[in-house]
Amino acid sequence: MTWTMARRAERLNPSTIREILKITERPGIISLAGGLPSADSFPVAAMAEATAKVLRDTPREALQYAASEGYAPLRAWVAAQMQAQGLQVDADQVLITTGSQQGLDLVGKVLIDPGSTVAVESPTYLGALQAFNPYEADFVAVEGDDEGPLPAGLDAARDARFLYLLPNFQNPSGRCLSADRRLALADKALAIGLPVVEDNPYGDLWFDAPPPPPISARMGGQAVYLGSFSKVLAPGLRLGYVVAPKLLYPKLLQAKQAADLHTPGFNQRVVHEVIKDGFLDRHVPTIRARYQAQRDAMRAALDAHMPAGCRWNVPVGGMFFWVTLPPQLDATALLPKAVEAGMAYVPGAPFFADAGGHANTLRLSFVTVPPAQIAAGVAALAGVLREAVA
Amino acid sequence: MTWTMARRAERLNPSTIREILKITERPGIISLAGGLPSADSFPVAAMAEATAKVLRDTPREALQYAASEGYAPLRAWVAAQMQAQGLQVDADQVLITTGSQQGLDLVGKVLIDPGSTVAVESPTYLGALQAFNPYEADFVAVEGDDEGPLPAGLDAARDARFLYLLPNFQNPSGRCLSADRRLALADKALAIGLPVVEDNPYGDLWFDAPPPPPISARMGGQAVYLGSFSKVLAPGLRLGYVVAPKLLYPKLLQAKQAADLHTPGFNQRVVHEVIKDGFLDRHVPTIRARYQAQRDAMRAALDAHMPAGCRWNVPVGGMFFWVTLPPQLDATALLPKAVEAGMAYVPGAPFFADAGGHANTLRLSFVTVPPAQIAAGVAALAGVLREAVA
Repeated sequence: MTWTMARRAERLNPSTIREILKITERPGIISLAGGLPSADSFPVAAMAEATAKVLRDTPREALQYAASEGYAPLRAWVAAQMQAQGLQVDADQVLITTGSQQGLDLVGKVLIDPGSTVAVESPTYLGALQAFNPYEADFVAVEGDDEGPLPAGLDAARDARFLYLLPNFQNPSGRCLSADRRLALADKALAIGLPVVEDNPYGDLWFDAPPPPPISARMGGQAVYLGSFSKVLAPGLRLGYVVAPKLLYPKLLQAKQAADLHTPGFNQRVVHEVIKDGFLDRHVPTIRARYQAQRDAMRAALDAHMPAGCRWNVPVGGMFFWVTLPPQLDATALLPKAVEAGMAYVPGAPFFADAGGHANTLRLSFVTVPPAQIAAGVAALAGVLREAVA
Repeated sequence: MTWTMARRAERLNPSTIREILKITERPGIISLAGGLPSADSFPVAAMAEATAKVLRDTPREALQYAASEGYAPLRAWVAAQMQAQGLQVDADQVLITTGSQQGLDLVGKVLIDPGSTVAVESPTYLGALQAFNPYEADFVAVEGDDEGPLPAGLDAARDARFLYLLPNFQNPSGRCLSADRRLALADKALAIGLPVVEDNPYGDLWFDAPPPPPISARMGGQAVYLGSFSKVLAPGLRLGYVVAPKLLYPKLLQAKQAADLHTPGFNQRVVHEVIKDGFLDRHVPTIRARYQAQRDAMRAALDAHMPAGCRWNVPVGGMFFWVTLPPQLDATALLPKAVEAGMAYVPGAPFFADAGGHANTLRLSFVTVPPAQIAAGVAALAGVLREAVA
């Protein structure tokens, strides 16, 4: 005796990033590790006003059990946003989720059998791998180039249950897929009958120009789209959404009922109260400006301090720089030294579905701390790397 | 092409109760169907004060990403409550969940393989069946008598992954297991190496005397305990918890991370702010008094109106009367007539894991509407039943 665990529990393992985040919570550590939005960007006054209003005007509804689908006005708001981006969807295709991470879990629950193949970018979002893994997926990393996954790479994924893509300012690579690449990937996926799960937590965080339209806009009923309020309002509310084709929606809804009955109605009403009159049109530009300045600070610090042989992208939105170190360096092995030097990053290796290699990559977030700390953190990292190279 | 669903999706089906609840949302219908707490019991003023305080004092923390385990002071509060009930647990065994429904889902994810047996009461909580079903469990309904499942009935469940029990004012039967029955079930489960998952959403809602100690208190590391703030504060916050043995905790935690990263930190801090100074000691007695009066109203109405041949329990806590109709009546078939007559209930059949039979049972909630509506709803039901009998 006594407890016998399910086979899928073998696929549940401590999150590398979560464990790192615990280290980085030590006071005095400059964390460029976690993808934590700047707390300076949280709309606290608007939240306070909205919570007070919801509890004054509709307390009985906000605090009661609610529909699994989500709060109808919020669903309608999401549908309108989607329509503006070229998706032909109705509000009844919108499922409000407890963060977009839950959307990934529900997609896995409904679509992945043990041994099913799931096609992913290389690297891809670690949280998606963690959501799909317990359903015993096999992953195939789609071949790509500097601009992202290649349409021809999808040939190796013909039998996959779906292709998981994060086209806008990807976590971890910061990469934004071009309009041409999106169209080519969509057309290839349609041609070979490969559905797409498109994740878009960062799309609103663009600097100079908005990203191209979502891939889902070209996919008809062959795409599921995931969105989030975490990066434009606040992650502590845990509010995201899934937009699903009518064929899939009932199963996702029933999986949602089984998972947590419904996303907190209180949170849904508060967020709807905050955003219903165009608040995001005023608020999100302030986040963009803040993050662009922080992106610039990190770019300048990288240019100034990093030793020869290190390469990085310059993201045009989102939250992350992706750094490639000289091939002999191992970012996981160097992390304790970096923490000793007063900063933290996330090693890149866990973001790859194909094991092996990639040890010389790491992710830096430029959104969590302000420019002066970014500069100090990058300088500390550069010192560790210079010593390691020598 | 194109979408291929997972085999487990076959087990995801529309919730009978959710579908019924939609009907009962029609204006003018007296719903004795859903297990919705009385909105009159929601502590709106305390919530308003706590949300304002959290957003004033710790907005950056409350609105940021947070630990998957839950908010430390809230975990400590739960552990202290558990210790007071005789469970030897530490705060690091407490996992805060997005409602206790999520606890059921995580338990299923970690413990159920396709074809695993799960032992349940007969009848049992429908939401638990819905949570465990997608993991392709086979259910064995433990033989019982009027006082609940029989220890000897567990012999048929020796190979089960766990025994799921709801000992306090069960949903749907309203039954509260005696101290003797709890001890006998615990000892038998320990003797045959059968772990217990104990669900306790209603334990605080007692009328004359608190229920006996939890079964988990006698089970050592052989029990998982699930609790909820939905019935003592408000369900719209979606706040529950799992107390797990140290062997299981890491896997449940990792399943939680994969499911939604963490339960909204904002909600956790607000609830902790409300309850930290003994608020529940003052508030819950008001809920008990309200529900006891409503229980009395329903009892009186049943006594006054129900036709001969109908039987019901008299619950000593919780939210539900369980009614057995004359054997020739079918509660599912009669529901449209009841709705026509202006009231709604939940048919009992879906609460049984063993299909077939039980058509002549139904559940009535006495907590959602006040006494006058309870009386009118029961009278309307009785009219429908009298006509059906005739």
